[in-house]
Amino acid sequence: MIIILQNEVSESQLSHVLERVEQLGLKAHLSRGTFRTIIGVIGDEQKISAESLRAIPGVLEVMPVLPPYKLASKDAHPQPSVVNVSGVKIGGGYLAMIAGPCAVEEPERMHNIAKAVRTAGANIFRGGAYKPRTSPYAFQGHGEDGLKLLREVGDAHGMPIVTEVMDPRCVETVERYADMIQIGARNMQNFVLLTEVGRTRKPVLLKRGMSATVEDLLMSAEYILSQGNPDVVLCERGVKGFDKVTRNLYDVASVAVVKGLSHLPIIVDPSHATGKPALIPPCALAGIAVGADGVHIEVHDCPEKALSDGPQALLPHKYAELMVQLKGLAALMGKEISPVPGEKLAATV
Amino acid sequence: MIIILQNEVSESQLSHVLERVEQLGLKAHLSRGTFRTIIGVIGDEQKISAESLRAIPGVLEVMPVLPPYKLASKDAHPQPSVVNVSGVKIGGGYLAMIAGPCAVEEPERMHNIAKAVRTAGANIFRGGAYKPRTSPYAFQGHGEDGLKLLREVGDAHGMPIVTEVMDPRCVETVERYADMIQIGARNMQNFVLLTEVGRTRKPVLLKRGMSATVEDLLMSAEYILSQGNPDVVLCERGVKGFDKVTRNLYDVASVAVVKGLSHLPIIVDPSHATGKPALIPPCALAGIAVGADGVHIEVHDCPEKALSDGPQALLPHKYAELMVQLKGLAALMGKEISPVPGEKLAATV
Amino acid sequence: MIIILQNEVSESQLSHVLERVEQLGLKAHLSRGTFRTIIGVIGDEQKISAESLRAIPGVLEVMPVLPPYKLASKDAHPQPSVVNVSGVKIGGGYLAMIAGPCAVEEPERMHNIAKAVRTAGANIFRGGAYKPRTSPYAFQGHGEDGLKLLREVGDAHGMPIVTEVMDPRCVETVERYADMIQIGARNMQNFVLLTEVGRTRKPVLLKRGMSATVEDLLMSAEYILSQGNPDVVLCERGVKGFDKVTRNLYDVASVAVVKGLSHLPIIVDPSHATGKPALIPPCALAGIAVGADGVHIEVHDCPEKALSDGPQALLPHKYAELMVQLKGLAALMGKEISPVPGEKLAATV
Amino acid sequence: MIIILQNEVSESQLSHVLERVEQLGLKAHLSRGTFRTIIGVIGDEQKISAESLRAIPGVLEVMPVLPPYKLASKDAHPQPSVVNVSGVKIGGGYLAMIAGPCAVEEPERMHNIAKAVRTAGANIFRGGAYKPRTSPYAFQGHGEDGLKLLREVGDAHGMPIVTEVMDPRCVETVERYADMIQIGARNMQNFVLLTEVGRTRKPVLLKRGMSATVEDLLMSAEYILSQGNPDVVLCERGVKGFDKVTRNLYDVASVAVVKGLSHLPIIVDPSHATGKPALIPPCALAGIAVGADGVHIEVHDCPEKALSDGPQALLPHKYAELMVQLKGLAALMGKEISPVPGEKLAATV
Repeated sequence: MIIILQNEVSESQLSHVLERVEQLGLKAHLSRGTFRTIIGVIGDEQKISAESLRAIPGVLEVMPVLPPYKLASKDAHPQPSVVNVSGVKIGGGYLAMIAGPCAVEEPERMHNIAKAVRTAGANIFRGGAYKPRTSPYAFQGHGEDGLKLLREVGDAHGMPIVTEVMDPRCVETVERYADMIQIGARNMQNFVLLTEVGRTRKPVLLKRGMSATVEDLLMSAEYILSQGNPDVVLCERGVKGFDKVTRNLYDVASVAVVKGLSHLPIIVDPSHATGKPALIPPCALAGIAVGADGVHIEVHDCPEKALSDGPQALLPHKYAELMVQLKGLAALMGKEISPVPGEKLAATV
Repeated sequence: MIIILQNEVSESQLSHVLERVEQLGLKAHLSRGTFRTIIGVIGDEQKISAESLRAIPGVLEVMPVLPPYKLASKDAHPQPSVVNVSGVKIGGGYLAMIAGPCAVEEPERMHNIAKAVRTAGANIFRGGAYKPRTSPYAFQGHGEDGLKLLREVGDAHGMPIVTEVMDPRCVETVERYADMIQIGARNMQNFVLLTEVGRTRKPVLLKRGMSATVEDLLMSAEYILSQGNPDVVLCERGVKGFDKVTRNLYDVASVAVVKGLSHLPIIVDPSHATGKPALIPPCALAGIAVGADGVHIEVHDCPEKALSDGPQALLPHKYAELMVQLKGLAALMGKEISPVPGEKLAATV
Repeated sequence: MIIILQNEVSESQLSHVLERVEQLGLKAHLSRGTFRTIIGVIGDEQKISAESLRAIPGVLEVMPVLPPYKLASKDAHPQPSVVNVSGVKIGGGYLAMIAGPCAVEEPERMHNIAKAVRTAGANIFRGGAYKPRTSPYAFQGHGEDGLKLLREVGDAHGMPIVTEVMDPRCVETVERYADMIQIGARNMQNFVLLTEVGRTRKPVLLKRGMSATVEDLLMSAEYILSQGNPDVVLCERGVKGFDKVTRNLYDVASVAVVKGLSHLPIIVDPSHATGKPALIPPCALAGIAVGADGVHIEVHDCPEKALSDGPQALLPHKYAELMVQLKGLAALMGKEISPVPGEKLAATV
Repeated sequence: MIIILQNEVSESQLSHVLERVEQLGLKAHLSRGTFRTIIGVIGDEQKISAESLRAIPGVLEVMPVLPPYKLASKDAHPQPSVVNVSGVKIGGGYLAMIAGPCAVEEPERMHNIAKAVRTAGANIFRGGAYKPRTSPYAFQGHGEDGLKLLREVGDAHGMPIVTEVMDPRCVETVERYADMIQIGARNMQNFVLLTEVGRTRKPVLLKRGMSATVEDLLMSAEYILSQGNPDVVLCERGVKGFDKVTRNLYDVASVAVVKGLSHLPIIVDPSHATGKPALIPPCALAGIAVGADGVHIEVHDCPEKALSDGPQALLPHKYAELMVQLKGLAALMGKEISPVPGEKLAATV
């Protein structure tokens, strides 16, 4: 950690800063410059917070030199992690192709969509039983009945399932039905919920918050990891932007940033990032090209009747066309779409 | 609601759109322009969602003309609401002056800070017993013991208390101790939590999320109001910005925007908005000048030993100086700092 | 255009609005809804400005339904434009690979870099003779001497050249030397300069401003096109973001948005978008995958001695490695890197 | 300056970094931490650029500890500057009240508006003769004829005038007519134009760019100051935001930030910041409350016939009402609206 002192710092303030650093069990290395005095703090900076040092009178700025996350960092785990979702691998060259409707719909529709995306090559099926809706008057999801149906449909079509949890009191129920638990963007810093899913033994799909930095995202992953659950897959789904031509601002570079800092797999969600069906295929390709470990796409066979987020859903035949392109790109990148359990590897590629 | 059709819309697509509008119980008013065809939808648009219309083939855009919130809107309640927090009024000319440490600290410190802010004119005491921390390794708050102490200190110094709740399972406990329940910025769209505090009978302080629009904020208030709790006070605390010279970007104009759209009181939090003690007093004054119904400020007598957010805390004597200015400004604006129960009105001003 | 009236609009205000619309030579189509009255304006809305209608008392909002640009729009020119830069084609399946140092450097270095990037497959050489620098004390470029050298180096290695102009008084000089004229991000809304380059007969590389929407970018292109210069190539180079882990926020989806709205070619600049060498290759690949018509990259053989922007320059061998991947991806997308004049097409791919 | 080395830096890389620092005439102070090695660079860091150090292999980050501007900084000039615009003082307790239409209009209207704002207490008259318009098809201003009229109207009503310049070739003409030259937000980083106005002897009103940090703004001021023109007044006019409920995001805290870093006066422009007449008065008050040295407001007597930006203009009687409030607030803050030449001081307040 580096402490930069104010120009007009007095000798007694300086002594006080040095004293505080030593009280915290660290060593201070003083360096008086022409214009500024700085202190290099030597020792394990992760034991203390920059915050308490920043509040000492005479201190201008405190700059940590290590990332504040440990378990999520590449230092702790130099090899890329591979997360196993009931037999489907994510990371280390294996791609997740997660697809399905936004919300769990009626049974026939669910089976139709599942069949279509599985045929196209999807390897994990999605659907929301609990929906975070901006309006209290909008459809809020089918709850546990939705979970049962999702499980049944996933099993029928041979795909593991992922679904969102919003309430810490529902984590146990969701864990019972799902192969992977999703934390949505609005809950990325719901630390109570992160702690709760960290106590399960199911892989977690953690979506980036709309105004979260990459560091914030990795800190939220750290919450889960620090509870003993090592299976976290990150997801870039667009951040808040000023141009309303897209729903969010798809931060594709964040995937490459994460690859440099962390061992955790990261996928992209061009459905939420763009909010427009025409933009989803090119943005999905961009995600794989930049190095993502998979793509999450909302697919619906009749968007105008969708219970949620219809306008951004891709039609099944458009999804199938996109999957052909994604497979070609995956091969070019030396990666492959992870087979589902029972499926032979070579068959997918 | 206005539906704008795509340039190349076919007659059969157009018929389908008109049919769907009528199925939804609304009337369609067609208007064929030189370049575009538009449909005015007549009827109660709040009964349907723009979303499902937007997903119909041939539709380019759907523009709602009414706000999606009802109970929070001025249409529903043209007069400004006055929220009563155990005798302290907020809104309608009465200002809340909320002050206290970020986290609940040790008893002696709590009493000292409470005494100082009360003497300066604060009318509600704050302190966090449950703290949302970015790092799982940081201090997370004292929990119920913290609530007890906060209650005791508030009572000793004659101020109602406000404290944050993060976990829906803790709402009942917090309700037992606090006069006002705070929903933090990171939980502004934690709809489960909003629903839960909407079921209590305690006033709620709802902080704006870091990337929430004013409409998002009012929709979150709507969640609480729609559960039957009419006592919501909004709080502008800065949104995410690109200039790291301040912690957040203080959106002071949002206060004036809210005043035009809603009857709910709104206060400002310059501590979180700026993150720097030197900027808090001028930004607090700006908040009252723009029309806010109060100011929320973190005060600590020894910021370097604060359990949380020390660097942005104001020292008690700085707070007292600021309060003198705030009282002068309030008088100029024809408002007054709400007295605490038992205190005579004229004495405050 | 759609005019939405305020709830409380009076009959005399309504008459006044209708009168104004007719004075402007348009027809008004009134539609009284349950809660709002709207007016559909029929006629050529591009003849009038939404602005003057918005200022009429009683008007709540005016929504244009056509884009404000004409020449840049797909309606005016449904086929993708192909811009020819002294023999190198951009658009319609041909990719530009623009490379070179940020600033024009000393002759030997310029020849070395040019040779390296040409060997790797670059087809346009870049270098700044006039540099927009945030600091008045930083190196501002070699001026006309720089232009001469750039011309000489481009000719020696068989590549057309592109260079930035900042001053309307220098446009004539730059036009004399360059094959393509660049307008930098900071000058995207320097309308005087746009008008001036619109009067030249050289293709223009127009970079997106840091806070420009896609519509703003297309309006700036319209300035150039409306002066009679049809050869505009757009460039996405990152917008201002809140996460300082990258220099800017690479808005890769904007490429797909532009493809839906305009016939103009658009390339990407991952050097400025990310500011970090390690992120440039994956982000360049993402750009081609999303559909861009080329990639602009800064290359330097000794970044620590670069006269400008050293830290974000790619080393020549890294550029060569990237070009191998870009060629593979281009082939997969059914595109090819445009040959330089004299070079046979098949040889590039 | 502080250089942070990469974890895996080799001894030869380290030697190379130390060598480079010494070649640049500075001293290196090495500090080996437990996890990182850092180098404190001692000497005048403003002589070198962080950029060239950042490009050296083995360097992770370079952190300047001094601001990159000198003449604009408080270190160079600890007392607040007072800028004199033909007798009207700005800064040091004197407030500028700049008002007038967006564009120069027809003579009768100009006289009416000038009379109204002068009567209300405005001390500088504004109007654009050259207008930066997003669309090439919109009204671009009356040019030199507009300047003549503005001069005449200013003289007739006893107010100095300010007007925008966009083209370096027009600076001489504008200088001949105007008392103060405005650089608009879109030209804040038009370094050619900044240099040109820096060579005049007229005060400059420099508006903050839509995505400029406070440091960027001060660097642009430095361009002007470094040419020998000491009279720069900054202007906060809103930055790009994600909530379209206001035209821009009014960054009122930036005024307080500037006051801490620089001696230059800074005013606010709530017209452009908010774009909505109803928000202008509260935001003007917030600007003075936060410490601004004046307010810039667009006033028009018939907004629907304004040649530019009608919807955001304030009506003269609304301006007069606001000025009463602003005078009261100024007095409370211990400031006064600067009298115009010939006017007695006491009369204003």
